[in-house]
Order: sequence, then C-alpha cells, then structure tokens
Amino acid sequence: MSSVFSEIPGGLNAPAGFLTGSIYCGIKASNPDRPDLAMIVSEFPAVAAGTFTTNRVKAAPVRVSKVHLRSAEVVAIVANAGNANACTGVPGIEGAKRMTQAAAKALGVKGRQILVCSTGRIGVQLPIEKLEHSIQELSSKVISTGSHAVAEAIMTSDTVKKEIAVEVQLSSGSIRIGAVAKGAGMIDPNMATMLCFITTDACIEKAELQQALAVSVEHSFNRITVDGDMSTNDTVLMLANAQAKNAPLRLGTADFERFQRALDHVTLSLAKMIVEDGEGVTKFVEVHVNGATSFSDARRAAEAIAKSCLVKCAWFGGDPNWGRIMDAIGYSGIKMREELVDIYYGGTLAVKGGVASSTPVEQLQRVVAQDRFCVTVDLHLGKAEYTVFTTDLSTDYVTLNMGE
Amino acid sequence: MSSVFSEIPGGLNAPAGFLTGSIYCGIKASNPDRPDLAMIVSEFPAVAAGTFTTNRVKAAPVRVSKVHLRSAEVVAIVANAGNANACTGVPGIEGAKRMTQAAAKALGVKGRQILVCSTGRIGVQLPIEKLEHSIQELSSKVISTGSHAVAEAIMTSDTVKKEIAVEVQLSSGSIRIGAVAKGAGMIDPNMATMLCFITTDACIEKAELQQALAVSVEHSFNRITVDGDMSTNDTVLMLANAQAKNAPLRLGTADFERFQRALDHVTLSLAKMIVEDGEGVTKFVEVHVNGATSFSDARRAAEAIAKSCLVKCAWFGGDPNWGRIMDAIGYSGIKMREELVDIYYGGTLAVKGGVASSTPVEQLQRVVAQDRFCVTVDLHLGKAEYTVFTTDLSTDYVTLNMGE
Repeated sequence: MSSVFSEIPGGLNAPAGFLTGSIYCGIKASNPDRPDLAMIVSEFPAVAAGTFTTNRVKAAPVRVSKVHLRSAEVVAIVANAGNANACTGVPGIEGAKRMTQAAAKALGVKGRQILVCSTGRIGVQLPIEKLEHSIQELSSKVISTGSHAVAEAIMTSDTVKKEIAVEVQLSSGSIRIGAVAKGAGMIDPNMATMLCFITTDACIEKAELQQALAVSVEHSFNRITVDGDMSTNDTVLMLANAQAKNAPLRLGTADFERFQRALDHVTLSLAKMIVEDGEGVTKFVEVHVNGATSFSDARRAAEAIAKSCLVKCAWFGGDPNWGRIMDAIGYSGIKMREELVDIYYGGTLAVKGGVASSTPVEQLQRVVAQDRFCVTVDLHLGKAEYTVFTTDLSTDYVTLNMGE
Repeated sequence: MSSVFSEIPGGLNAPAGFLTGSIYCGIKASNPDRPDLAMIVSEFPAVAAGTFTTNRVKAAPVRVSKVHLRSAEVVAIVANAGNANACTGVPGIEGAKRMTQAAAKALGVKGRQILVCSTGRIGVQLPIEKLEHSIQELSSKVISTGSHAVAEAIMTSDTVKKEIAVEVQLSSGSIRIGAVAKGAGMIDPNMATMLCFITTDACIEKAELQQALAVSVEHSFNRITVDGDMSTNDTVLMLANAQAKNAPLRLGTADFERFQRALDHVTLSLAKMIVEDGEGVTKFVEVHVNGATSFSDARRAAEAIAKSCLVKCAWFGGDPNWGRIMDAIGYSGIKMREELVDIYYGGTLAVKGGVASSTPVEQLQRVVAQDRFCVTVDLHLGKAEYTVFTTDLSTDYVTLNMGE
C-alpha cells in the first residue's frame, strides 16, 4: 500500500459527517428485494466536484447536476437505478429537477444544493411520483452505516458491490475518503455507464477539489474499456465537508500531494473493480503502450488494442494471437515503424522487431490462460506511454446484451 | 437491374482473354481437398489498377503489389490463402517477390508484371518452395473456365464463393466485367481482410481505370463493417486487357459513366455478399444517416452505430434498443441536437425528436426480427448523408474468433 494512506472499512461513511441509505422505490419491478434509490447526505454543507460523460446525448440528471454543481455548497446526492432518464426530453429534465426538489424539501435546503444521478434503461420516463414519495421517506432514514446499502442500490448488471475507504495522514492530522461505484455495461474511456460517489471530510476549496478529482478520473475511469460504448449517464461526484478540521489543502503542498495520491488509489481501485465485474468478463488485461512519439499516439494504440473485437475474442479463447494486436496498432493510425515493434505477453517476448520472436507459443499460451495478464507494446520511437485496463469479449457478453 | 448492363455467368472469365485456375499447394495442411493457390492470367498484356489497406502494418504482398502496379502492363495475379505473409519482415518481402518471379518465369514475362496477394494467418513465414513449385505447375493449367476455382481458393472462413460478371452496352459495342472476392473476418471500412480481383476486356487507359476503381471501392468495400477490425492485407486489383476492341473509355463521356455504373454494381454486390457471409452473421443491416451538417459527420455517426458492440448484440437478440443507437450517435462526436433526432427501423418511426415515438415496441420488434433491415437516422441539421452495410454481433462470432 503506502505509508501515506491505508485502507479502512466504512465506505462512504468512513469520513466524518455523512449519512447514507437506500430504499426500494418500485422502478425495478422485477426485484422488490433490491433497493433502487440511494441517498448520500452531508450533515454539514459541503463543497462539491464532478466529472461527467462527454457523450453529446446526455441524460437529464447529468444536465441538472452540472448546473447544481455550480452551487457554493451542496448537501446531498440522490440516485436511482433501473431507469437512466436519458432520451426523455423536457419531461425528463422536469423529472430530474423534481427529484432534487423532493430531497431539498425533505432536508430543508435548496433544490440546487442537491445533485442527482440515474442509471438503467434509456428512453423511458421516470415514475416521478413514486420517486418523490420514496425520496421523502429515505431522507429521514439515512444513517451513519448505510454505505453498503448505497453501493447495492446503484447496481444494475453489476454482480458485486464496489466500495472503498482510505485514511490519509497529513501534516496536521488525518482525513478520510470513502467511495462507492457501479459499472458493468457500456464501459469505455471517458466513463461510460458508470457512477461513482466519493465523500471526504477533508477541508479543501471547491476549485482544488475539482482539480484533484479531474486528475484522479483521468488516470482511472478514463482508462477503462469493456465494450467501447460510452454511456449517456456517466458521473463521478465528490463531496468534501471539512469535518476533519485539517488546515485547508492547497495546491502545490506536500499535503495536497498526499491527498491526490490517496484519491488516485480510491478511483483506480474502483475502476479496476468495474472492469473485473464487466458484463461477461473472464479476463482482466492491462494494455501498456511505451515508446510512442506522443501521449496521444500511445493512447490511440492502447485503445485500439483494448477495443478490438478480434483481439478480445482471442483472449477469451486463451489464444496469444499477436497478429491481431499488430493489426490494431496499424489501423489506429499512429506513427509507427512495423519493424521496430516489440510485444510482450506478461514478461514474455512475443514479437521482436515486428516479427514472431523465438518464444515457443506454449509459453505465450500459459500467460493468456491466466485470469489477469499484461500486454506490453514497445514502439521504440519515443518516450510517451499509456495504459488501458480492459477485458476479453466472451459469448456471455453477447448473451447478456442481446435483449433486456 | 439496368438497361445499361446485365448480369451474366462466367465470373472472371466472362471478359475475353483471361485464363484462371487454382491448385492445392499445401499451405492449408488441414484441408488438402480445397485449393489454396489461385492465378488469373491475361492472355494479352493488361493495364492494372488497385486499392490497398490503409493499415500502417501492411503485409509483404501489399508492399510488393503496390510497386508492381506502377508497371505499364501487367500479365497476371497470383494469390494464396492460409498464410497472410504479414508481420514477416524482410523474409516476407523476399517471399512475396519470389512468388511473382515464379509466375513471371513460367509465363515468360517480367516479375514486375505480376501482382501478388496473400490472406490467412498473420506472423508465419511462407512455405516458399512449395509455392514456387505450385505456381509453376498452375501456370500451365489455367483455363477459360476457372473463375469458380479462383473464388474457392481464396476463401478463408468464407462459407460461400463470391463471384459476379456483367455485360455493359457501350455506344461502340459491349464490354464485360468479371470479379471474385473473399471476406469473412476483419471486415471494416477501408477494406479489412478482403480480397477482390476484377477482370475486364474494356479498352481503357491506366489512369482512368484507377479513377473508376477508386470511386467504386469508395462506395462499396469502404462502406462495410463486420467487426471494426481493418486488416493488413486488403487488396482490390483490376486488370483491363482491351480485348473487347471498344473505343478507349474517356472520362466525362456517356460510355465511361456506363462503365462506372456497371463497375459500381460489381463491387457493391460483392461487398454485400461479404457482409452477409461475415463470421457468425445472422442479420444484414443497412445504416443510413441523413440530415448531417457534413459528409464526415454522417459517416462518423453511421460507423459508430455500425461498430457498437451493444447495438449489434441487441440486433442479434431481435431487440430494437434505440437507446443504444442514440448513445452511439452521441459518442461519435458529431454535431447533433438530441431533440431533433428521428430514428426509423425499416420505415417505422422508433424515435421522434430524441424521445420514444408512440410506435408500439412489438412493431419495431417485427422489423428487427427480420434477416435484413434498415436503420435510418435523421439528424435534421443539414443535407449530408452516408450509408454503411453491417451485421449483428453473435455468440458464433465470438466462438469463431476465440482461437484458430
């Protein structure tokens, strides 16, 4: 781990001054035992930061939360699963606003102090009366141990809850960060259908919180891909309520750097959990591209490999088919010289100078047979590098997505 | 069809003056009953045109044929299946050259008058002695009825032979065009693993033949996608040997326009056959995007839809999940206004102004249940449009590609 921070239990409730909970509000008619509405309340007004999908088709809650995020102080996040409230037009925007108003009324604050998220099926209007009623009920039931319940409520096709918390030692005492996330389908760089909520009791100004969050997201959620589809609803929200009473974190200080490293750990851990729990995933693969002439080239090559249906099918079958990797690098359009390219499976050389290495194929097959492995490409042209976290493409992925 | 041209039998041999054939040379050890080496010989020196993969990783035969295509006159095409001769370094280039030299020697012409293609597994060196021996043998066995044999020899995971011929009425008599193609996996715009050989007895100059072929390829092979993977070997080659004795075809004339339309028909027919015979394909889908502000935007949106794993899985399951189509348009990055978008399945309105239409979902399901259907997106912003021919993504596609 690190001497700077350590993992602790408690999830969203590990930081002081947060109440959490969930309830079944009736959106997921098929499964009344599983909650589908969650709430995270800061007992003290918090500063908030967020990053959102870059899809031009944005869900209504994304549009509303982007505006509300401008508020100097935020009090709560409300989120539902089972309905994405995307492609729902003006009634969708109204519905998202009414969700925030219902929470604001129950908590005695202003509507713009509430952030809202939805995830689930696209193109269906929200059952807004049910939601308003349940939001009011849930507001009085949030507790200091409800993080698990939130993690459970935002699951869609996820199979495991995704939760983490860390304690960070600063020069003036310690602060804590807690988080939950959901992923599963439509996972792609730039945060396809994933939600992540992060709490901290650190004292930090809004602009600096946004800066720290943007950096962490760039190195975690923006580097994962399951199927290359980016969703309309992706959202990462973070609340900081200053209850740790630390000296305000300032950019450029050692304390800020510690906070950043801990936040990086939180988001990267959740991002990896999302990939491992991707729909129909049987293998978790880290794709490293080194030696590119630019950061952008390194990223394009890594993403082309990570998104190639043929490469991913070969991994599913345990086939170290490096020809498909060479092919993907080639069509990514980056600057490359075929005769300089080396490719490694794990630490084992598969391609040397653009042609097959002398490694026996059985040795490469042993790497690809594992549940987790790395693919490293060295372009030998420059110093830029990039890493993407991805998966195989399985028959189960197709079956899970052929209708719902 | 058309009053300008009509389909006729004969394939590559329909035009006068071409001899064709195939042989088993031993590359595909698993299947000695199926030929794996093909040859197309023009009895008279021909002018040649070609288009090639834009992948930066180019197979050795692509590199060699690009150079040989500069020759004023070409005599033959030699092609093998089972080995792509890609990622094979300098020995690969040597091998491709030796294939052309073997054919040249047997036919009594120069090596640079022979074009060469390979398709199959990447990263394995050619069994060049076997090939040289078989090329010599095959050179003496080409016949005026061997088109079928060529179409069969270039098949890899194709399940049907792809062959066509047309006769075109010009002001000064008629000319003929014949062609064969192979496709199956790695099919993507810009001609992923596909080969197409076209013969014509038209009299046309080299530059004009290249112009006509480039236009036809742009409207056919560059508009098909099965899995979004573009191969290292894609090649379209065309030979014109002037044996029809027509007045030379000149750009801007009515005769040239007729020739172009007939050639468009040949390439589009083969392109559609390739998509329909794609690996594991159960549905053939035409994606039309209209109303874009630019051609490039129309293309990006159509390709994003056609390549989306989630959209294609939904089609496989017969699910008219238009939310995934909206999502794909959104992340394609084009200029769009969500509230203006209409989407049709077949002629049936699924989305009106960015939200669900009032069409009952059963009606949309009936369209998607068909083996062939159209998806039309109207962005209502401009006049640019684009069409892509694509498929679903099936469990069989994954199974076929998980190892070989």
